[in-house]
Amino acid sequence: MTPKRTLAKVPVRKIKDGASTNEKDLVAAEEPLEIRISGEAAGKRFDHGIAVTMRTPGDDYELAAGFLHTEGILRNPEDLREITYCVGADKQNQQYNVVRVRLRDGVAFDLARLQRNFYASSSCGICGKASLDAVRAAGCEAIASEGPKVPAKVVLGFAETLRARQSVFEKTGGIHAAALFDAAGALVVLREDIGRHNAVDKAVGERFLAGQTKLSGLILFVSGRASFEIMQKAAMAGVPAVAAVGAPSSLAVDFAKEFGQTLLGFVRDGRFNIYAGAERIEA
Amino acid sequence: MTPKRTLAKVPVRKIKDGASTNEKDLVAAEEPLEIRISGEAAGKRFDHGIAVTMRTPGDDYELAAGFLHTEGILRNPEDLREITYCVGADKQNQQYNVVRVRLRDGVAFDLARLQRNFYASSSCGICGKASLDAVRAAGCEAIASEGPKVPAKVVLGFAETLRARQSVFEKTGGIHAAALFDAAGALVVLREDIGRHNAVDKAVGERFLAGQTKLSGLILFVSGRASFEIMQKAAMAGVPAVAAVGAPSSLAVDFAKEFGQTLLGFVRDGRFNIYAGAERIEA
Repeated sequence: MTPKRTLAKVPVRKIKDGASTNEKDLVAAEEPLEIRISGEAAGKRFDHGIAVTMRTPGDDYELAAGFLHTEGILRNPEDLREITYCVGADKQNQQYNVVRVRLRDGVAFDLARLQRNFYASSSCGICGKASLDAVRAAGCEAIASEGPKVPAKVVLGFAETLRARQSVFEKTGGIHAAALFDAAGALVVLREDIGRHNAVDKAVGERFLAGQTKLSGLILFVSGRASFEIMQKAAMAGVPAVAAVGAPSSLAVDFAKEFGQTLLGFVRDGRFNIYAGAERIEA
Repeated sequence: MTPKRTLAKVPVRKIKDGASTNEKDLVAAEEPLEIRISGEAAGKRFDHGIAVTMRTPGDDYELAAGFLHTEGILRNPEDLREITYCVGADKQNQQYNVVRVRLRDGVAFDLARLQRNFYASSSCGICGKASLDAVRAAGCEAIASEGPKVPAKVVLGFAETLRARQSVFEKTGGIHAAALFDAAGALVVLREDIGRHNAVDKAVGERFLAGQTKLSGLILFVSGRASFEIMQKAAMAGVPAVAAVGAPSSLAVDFAKEFGQTLLGFVRDGRFNIYAGAERIEA
């Protein structure tokens, strides 16, 4: 259904050891995607453009659903009626770049609330603390303390599984991955995108479209670094643990502690660091 | 002047070879920065919040100037009167998170134009081609064909110079860098940030605040991948060549060809690939 246009072939001149050769190479595709929300509430129809993101084409419905879910705009799968490409566009190369998310009739959507700046509702101005407060104000709840218990050796296996399954990365060397694993190390879903956030949205969106929103038994594994926004997306999806191949930021650590998440960094080469929520890891 | 708060120390439990140790570790700081524009034109004072970005504190004036310049909002250094932190905020931890860019009196600023979606002015809807058209409509010009001639061995030295000079990366393993080099391989400016785009804005902003806007003799080197937005920022600053440690995206390649830029990828380990503008590289 979703067309796969994840790769593009381009001519390239390769320079190595003083020699130059002309070849064809695969690069990760990057195209804009507009996400629209439409529906009918209180007798009025609405159809709003919500966001434009530069993404790798493919899994676009999952990306749209995951984005709206992790941004707190679309809470329940039951509120979703359908997702479609806007096919009115007459140009071949743009007809898969606009996705319309149709809400169930009667489900309202508050555009003004969305457009308010994220810190406008904060009492303390703009700072790391205010950013955390804003996430809570947007309806994000702290993760329940029980959560999964994950053996350290399961964590150590994430990177290998990811690399073995990443298809676009292998061909292009240039794409991010996000995966959801269960506590036994089984891969639930893996998605790739040129954007870190998009890869997370696609993985969470896949679960959302399968009717799952409280992902309390899963661990999110990302190929890059762990920043504030990655932690926020995980928390909005109810994910209790985030593991990153790269380093965490200071605000990612603060976020994890504030929302009761486990945060692991540098998960590679037979080691990892625990920055928050060590009680979920069995060493 | 700009306070350096680029690092934060956090407790961490390290798991390696089945052993667990408790240590203190440095992570890259991440805090929101609000960029405001103020001034007076046609007898009216204005003061608008333009953007909030999650960034690593430090070089905030350069970040603000570079962001406004590469987004096409602030064209000439002469239009700038001063940049200051908003010190009215009474909380210690937020007073360096709001920067006000004061324009010279009489320089107008069109908020409505900025708020229009980037594709609204495009005739072809939303697609890669439309994104390129929108950049041109925003006043971005193609790079003149002469440009610098860069020997391949100069390109091969970029990565080593960057690594040797990156201070925060070494301590945290988790930060992006952007550097401007001249055609002989001399480092002009290096800036680091948790966000790829911010690092580029800081480097370009440093030049802007020094009065330089047409960076026609410089090469932008980035620690990550080359995407559409990186190419756009380089083009807006007049930079004729972009070299990336990582892979380019398809749209980055399209952008470079459309705007006459040189684009190099995988610049590491004694090799690199030329995706566009090979005439500027002397193999």
